Amino acid sequence: MRKRIVSARKFVKPSFAYLIEKKRDGGEFNHDEIRFIVDSIVDKELPQHQLAALCMAIYFQNMSAQETATLAEEMMLSGDVVDLSKITKPKIDKYSTGGVGDKTSLVLVPLAAACGVVMPNMNGVDEEFVISNLDKLGAIPGFNPSLTLDKFVDQLSTVGCTIAEQRKEIAPVDEVFYQMRQLTATVPSLPLITASVLSRKLAQGAEGLVVDVKWGNGSFIKDVEQAKQLARSITRVGRSMKRRCVALVTDINQPLGDSVGTGLEIQEAVKLLKGEGTEDLQELVLKLGMEIVRLAGVAGSTLSAKQTVQRALKEGAAFEKFKEMVAAQGGKTDVLDDPEKFPKAKYVRKLPAPKRGYVHTINAGMIARGVQLLGQNKKGKLDPAVGVSEIQKVGTQVKQGEPLMMIHYNDESKLESALDYLRSAYRLAPKRPNPPELIVERVA
Amino acid sequence: MRKRIVSARKFVKPSFAYLIEKKRDGGEFNHDEIRFIVDSIVDKELPQHQLAALCMAIYFQNMSAQETATLAEEMMLSGDVVDLSKITKPKIDKYSTGGVGDKTSLVLVPLAAACGVVMPNMNGVDEEFVISNLDKLGAIPGFNPSLTLDKFVDQLSTVGCTIAEQRKEIAPVDEVFYQMRQLTATVPSLPLITASVLSRKLAQGAEGLVVDVKWGNGSFIKDVEQAKQLARSITRVGRSMKRRCVALVTDINQPLGDSVGTGLEIQEAVKLLKGEGTEDLQELVLKLGMEIVRLAGVAGSTLSAKQTVQRALKEGAAFEKFKEMVAAQGGKTDVLDDPEKFPKAKYVRKLPAPKRGYVHTINAGMIARGVQLLGQNKKGKLDPAVGVSEIQKVGTQVKQGEPLMMIHYNDESKLESALDYLRSAYRLAPKRPNPPELIVERVA
Repeated sequence: MRKRIVSARKFVKPSFAYLIEKKRDGGEFNHDEIRFIVDSIVDKELPQHQLAALCMAIYFQNMSAQETATLAEEMMLSGDVVDLSKITKPKIDKYSTGGVGDKTSLVLVPLAAACGVVMPNMNGVDEEFVISNLDKLGAIPGFNPSLTLDKFVDQLSTVGCTIAEQRKEIAPVDEVFYQMRQLTATVPSLPLITASVLSRKLAQGAEGLVVDVKWGNGSFIKDVEQAKQLARSITRVGRSMKRRCVALVTDINQPLGDSVGTGLEIQEAVKLLKGEGTEDLQELVLKLGMEIVRLAGVAGSTLSAKQTVQRALKEGAAFEKFKEMVAAQGGKTDVLDDPEKFPKAKYVRKLPAPKRGYVHTINAGMIARGVQLLGQNKKGKLDPAVGVSEIQKVGTQVKQGEPLMMIHYNDESKLESALDYLRSAYRLAPKRPNPPELIVERVA
Repeated sequence: MRKRIVSARKFVKPSFAYLIEKKRDGGEFNHDEIRFIVDSIVDKELPQHQLAALCMAIYFQNMSAQETATLAEEMMLSGDVVDLSKITKPKIDKYSTGGVGDKTSLVLVPLAAACGVVMPNMNGVDEEFVISNLDKLGAIPGFNPSLTLDKFVDQLSTVGCTIAEQRKEIAPVDEVFYQMRQLTATVPSLPLITASVLSRKLAQGAEGLVVDVKWGNGSFIKDVEQAKQLARSITRVGRSMKRRCVALVTDINQPLGDSVGTGLEIQEAVKLLKGEGTEDLQELVLKLGMEIVRLAGVAGSTLSAKQTVQRALKEGAAFEKFKEMVAAQGGKTDVLDDPEKFPKAKYVRKLPAPKRGYVHTINAGMIARGVQLLGQNKKGKLDPAVGVSEIQKVGTQVKQGEPLMMIHYNDESKLESALDYLRSAYRLAPKRPNPPELIVERVA
């Protein structure tokens, strides 16, 4: 049994079958019942098949905001809770549901720290085809994602930010739930996603949370309504837990920015940290950055938030903070100062446009699969030099034969099958399409 | 892998998570998929947690009649299928969802055999508070419920009927499903109940099935609509499997007949086999008996069905057949000829009416619990002498102090707690209530 203050009230343990039945019939668990479920998982007393049935019952019947908040809190308490009380600065984290080409966290974490907001960022494994932030940072020689909790707190005190690997000590019950959800087709359950995110982020020491819920063909959320529901669920439950929480629902029906890969995305992140890069990414970094500094209380008005963020980018503070963080985690920063020093692919070739026209749609998921085929070794690790760059975005006009993107690869034998995906990802049309709306909704 | 003719078509095995997701989203399994699920259970390759999630997804999304029929057939084929082709008489079985005081199967099985209909009856464990037929027959000294499949077939050839224990060789996958359903609050799933009943009954050699779906406070089905749905589900799926199938939805908002117990119910069954007993039971035996002989083709018209059944009761053929069956299974029949030879309880006392009035409602479940408290030993076995008799039924007028029932017991220390239940089961009212409708619906 985990150590905790046990309530003096008498609670008669119900049977697991009774709890499943209660949820099956749409009932709402009380605090004692949720604590009992979480304790039983910690103590390995809840049989796998009953946890499975419970997940499916929750999938169909959902949980109220109060129930989900209680679950998140109990899951948070199932492991270590990082104590950042000695750090006086505001502590805010950023969470993205993940998307193809999304390198905003790499930029926002040091950017926020440069603005005086501590970011205790840990990263788990991402869904499906999305390359994780840690895989990307792995392209920097020497970078170490694995921090003990003591080191994690140290680095937050000295540098002000981390991008570290999820620790086993943080919300261990979340790991049990997540593995079960993958095996039982209950990953998309809104209350279970919500409790998972909040339990981990709050256990890592965040006082508030800015969430980016991405919807589209480059995300595991293909439906905008589902994305909106998740944004509302996380913010509502976060509020129930007395935490500040803002969510943006954003479009990822094409890759974010103009590169997909590990080393290539780090290079793009460096550009963004200097205030350069594609329009969509610049806008998203600005908007999310403004949410962070306002939530943290570092900036009061929209205007001052914008100025704070833009200054940190333009004056180089964000980039300096990034290098400081990388160095603190053992990474070599010379590749960041001089991108020429990044490992280069043996071959670079263009993907030619098959005809003239406008880029009408891009299936980001297919681009991700193409990059995986191109650069993944048998252990699933991506070659840091491999990927695609200079992606022409939706709305761009191209002539026949002009590059839709540049393909970086080391293994010629993998090119053909990758090209199938990359080619199929593009649809050209004679008329200019309406540009997709990048930020669909803000939920606070 | 069980032995069977494997289809020549190519079937690519899906992942279990995919199958769960398909059902979660309301998809319909094809034959290959259902066969794969059942084979995987037989081969112990379907993990418990994934079976649990699948059961819950089926609970919420249901299965079509075709899907359920395929599941029932594959479950049937998961074990031995009894071959009764050498017996030329029609082979029909009767299934009741079970209810407090329901002794119709004890009567109908020999009655049908006396009318020339072979009844290959096997019994599983009953739901919750219901005393099983085998427990009741256990009150007859020497009675052996356990027949090997060879003995089962032999007795059907010679006597024409059995009331035997469910064999492990029959539909073993049903047992796996059932245990899982009990642990995961998915017992009430209509398609899973339907497939369970049909797979077992058809594997036991029945060509057709007469079903009694009981609803009310003496059944695990408390809702008449749910009972109707189950009746429709079993008959519809039975038809899909090309079997004759009739179901009656009947009331059990009070105990059936006037006794609850083991020895006491056997004595009541003997009365019924002689054409005596309470009105409700006599009517139900007649109606179900008529369905059986008509379904079997032994009687063509309603009138001839009625005459056939009544003759078998009045002329003693049904009672003789019952004794023949009991003797074939090792039981002593002298207690049946002379009920005085049944073990008697040390004490018999009345439950007095607390006031004058009409019996308005009886909670049959509470009477069953009272009898359990009164006579069950630590292993859950009921004392054959213990129970209640002369139950006054709904609509009866009683004076204060007149017996509502007679209580038979051996252990005085258990009386008080049992009395609490028995007393609370009765509600008296000054006005005569409308009599409950015994047969609510016939589904064919």
